[in-house]
Amino acid sequence: MAVTLKILARSAQTRARLGRVTTPHGVFDTPAFMPVGTQGTIKGLPLPLVDATGSQIILGNTYHLMLRPGSDLVAAMGGLHAFAGWPGPMLTDSGGFQAYSMSDTNTIDDDGVTFRSVVDGSKVHVSPERSMQVQNQLGADIIMAFDDCPPSIDPTAQSRAAQRLMVTQQKAVSRSKAQYDHAGRLDEANDRTLRWLERCRAAHARPHDQALFGIVQGGTDLDRRTRSASQVTRIELPGYAIGGVAVGEGFDEIVKVVEHTAPLLPENKPRYLMGVGYERDIVAAVKAGVDMFDCVLPTRNGRNAFAFTPTGTVRLRNAKYAEDPGPLDPTCDCLACAPAVHGWVFPRAPSGTRGRFGDSQGGFEGGRSSGCYSRAYLRHLFMAKEMLGPILVSLHNVRHFQRLMVDIRAAIREDGWSALARHWPVTSPSFDSTLPGTPPGSKGSEIEGLGSPL
Amino acid sequence: MAVTLKILARSAQTRARLGRVTTPHGVFDTPAFMPVGTQGTIKGLPLPLVDATGSQIILGNTYHLMLRPGSDLVAAMGGLHAFAGWPGPMLTDSGGFQAYSMSDTNTIDDDGVTFRSVVDGSKVHVSPERSMQVQNQLGADIIMAFDDCPPSIDPTAQSRAAQRLMVTQQKAVSRSKAQYDHAGRLDEANDRTLRWLERCRAAHARPHDQALFGIVQGGTDLDRRTRSASQVTRIELPGYAIGGVAVGEGFDEIVKVVEHTAPLLPENKPRYLMGVGYERDIVAAVKAGVDMFDCVLPTRNGRNAFAFTPTGTVRLRNAKYAEDPGPLDPTCDCLACAPAVHGWVFPRAPSGTRGRFGDSQGGFEGGRSSGCYSRAYLRHLFMAKEMLGPILVSLHNVRHFQRLMVDIRAAIREDGWSALARHWPVTSPSFDSTLPGTPPGSKGSEIEGLGSPL
Repeated sequence: MAVTLKILARSAQTRARLGRVTTPHGVFDTPAFMPVGTQGTIKGLPLPLVDATGSQIILGNTYHLMLRPGSDLVAAMGGLHAFAGWPGPMLTDSGGFQAYSMSDTNTIDDDGVTFRSVVDGSKVHVSPERSMQVQNQLGADIIMAFDDCPPSIDPTAQSRAAQRLMVTQQKAVSRSKAQYDHAGRLDEANDRTLRWLERCRAAHARPHDQALFGIVQGGTDLDRRTRSASQVTRIELPGYAIGGVAVGEGFDEIVKVVEHTAPLLPENKPRYLMGVGYERDIVAAVKAGVDMFDCVLPTRNGRNAFAFTPTGTVRLRNAKYAEDPGPLDPTCDCLACAPAVHGWVFPRAPSGTRGRFGDSQGGFEGGRSSGCYSRAYLRHLFMAKEMLGPILVSLHNVRHFQRLMVDIRAAIREDGWSALARHWPVTSPSFDSTLPGTPPGSKGSEIEGLGSPL
Repeated sequence: MAVTLKILARSAQTRARLGRVTTPHGVFDTPAFMPVGTQGTIKGLPLPLVDATGSQIILGNTYHLMLRPGSDLVAAMGGLHAFAGWPGPMLTDSGGFQAYSMSDTNTIDDDGVTFRSVVDGSKVHVSPERSMQVQNQLGADIIMAFDDCPPSIDPTAQSRAAQRLMVTQQKAVSRSKAQYDHAGRLDEANDRTLRWLERCRAAHARPHDQALFGIVQGGTDLDRRTRSASQVTRIELPGYAIGGVAVGEGFDEIVKVVEHTAPLLPENKPRYLMGVGYERDIVAAVKAGVDMFDCVLPTRNGRNAFAFTPTGTVRLRNAKYAEDPGPLDPTCDCLACAPAVHGWVFPRAPSGTRGRFGDSQGGFEGGRSSGCYSRAYLRHLFMAKEMLGPILVSLHNVRHFQRLMVDIRAAIREDGWSALARHWPVTSPSFDSTLPGTPPGSKGSEIEGLGSPL
């Protein structure tokens, strides 16, 4: 197997496992969080800085790279590791999810998906065989099966959850809304996912150094999840993923599906929950036995001036931060919050400095600067539309998630779940990060944008 | 004096001097190149990465910071060093040049300049006293006198040079074009610059830790340069600058003015040529005895996919780089061209990798990847509108100029001018970088943009 999991410790109170995955490009510790590098770059972050966040494995999007610059070119440049400059483990998705959801017009049949390229409008066809060919050219250590990802809940229902479904997913069924049969669609997707998985395995040309993961579908219907897990895991693969989760349904539904599905996956293989998520989602899934996560939230929210902290999101555009001399998160050790940790001599205000705000606050002998990039400075960067704002807050956010994973791994070893909850209030099931902290149009957390740098 | 120059070596063949300037925030070697940090950030570059380019002193723009976030706030945060996180020497300009040139409507009289803010449209007045107050609040080690900067050549003339004048400078005189008297305007500016310099010195509240530099004006008229230099240097200051150069006139005119003016400035004080420039401009000015330079070219061209090299500009959007596996500049040691120098393990293509382009080129055993960010990858980033493109090429360009300064300093010590010319063809007087390599609308190289991150 190209990729193997060694389980190092188990939680007694939960199904969580601490492990280490070995790949042709090195190891990564699990549970692991993978930042998303959609177009061959984690938006705004030189990879040496990503490395400094503690990220050990990163994700690339097959859909985007296939359209631009094209997998032929990436292959000619030695594969995605050499092209983008990442020496460590890497995973690519299959391109299927984006093919369905990012295109206004697409058709799906048993052969695959046909859609218009968002780059140049040309007609593109992706089949299981084509997805494997592209992923073989990109050369990631872990590659994903090309699956059929249906809406997780009935998008024609009048529920609040259905309204939260990604706009693109609603669109995908709107053409046939009158006749839409949710249960039938789930079954069709399950069967097709299984047939396509067989075709993926047959087409996969580099099983010796690329690990193909199968994907379990089934929406929020637990029986269908059971059936899909049973079918998919019958095919011997180095790892398995839970797909079709966190595409709009709420926390309770996500947890229900993951707690049901994770234990159905083989004990000795990595389990990957695709596209998840917020901190509480990750902790709940870890407790259900999941090992791997990816999400665009740290970078996308970072570009939009939303900074994660253990107690909730800092919305930097809020005027109350205009004169805030403190760091984004005083507990954080990222380059923005704690430059000294990274060897950067950050100047403090000279003793006795005074300014307009000094008087009303009793002066600030020794300076109000706390020896780091202040919320006031970071807010200024966003107000002035300076790239360094997205850069520094994205960096902070990725480190936030990696610090959470460090603490999660410690919690597993010691069953220290109450300490974890104390240090990370955002991981409480009652903490809904999506309400105050989510920028408009980001209900689905799976897709990193094309195009605009912000 | 807050700032002192120690001359360490002199060229026998030219007027060039090698020196070291001591400031309250440390030393910098001269001749020095200062990257421009317009809005409290060098666009796209975390300052630890700027430090890694060998930059020892950076520049901030008073005009921009005064408008946003305001100098009161910066002062309350401990000054610009603490606000932006730069522990080393820093220089701010006076805001005058931008006040004239960045605003559609402005009026100038003996008291100062009144203009509309480009941030919020409010009416702003800047006088010598106000410029000093703002620069005292920002707290840079070197601050610049508020001067009257007229068009360097007659903008109503029908010459090619006049047509190259910055659009904004032409605009500034267009309202009175019929009656415009260029010689009279130069005299008025010279006299006003002198009166304002006296007012700046009187208003400067921190001479103990901020060095005020006077500015010599006079356009391209050498007699007026002589008179201005004589008047300005009669006022005892820690350093002097040559202003009003490289605002549209050509290389020959720049050299003529600088060769004439630099020797008129005190031998034992730093000499600063403002807003210059291309490599050949810098070398010519160094040979005339100039010690300090600043320019937005490395960052602005970097954001627009133009990479500097010793043999000329690489226009990354050009299709011929789409499959180019080489670095921007094989002689460069920046993070993009030589990641290993910075401790970054850049993966190479695995031995035997083959792709579409491999066959036609006889295969690429050992990989076509050269262990660095390739031109192909960097071009991809720009085509995909990814921030990392501007980040990496800006970083490369700043390092390009700092490498040039290192070689210039070595050339001074050894009078090795022919070796310098051999290694840096772009420094030849006959090499016009502005023709193939300059993005549209960038005739003037002095102003870094507001607003858009790209």
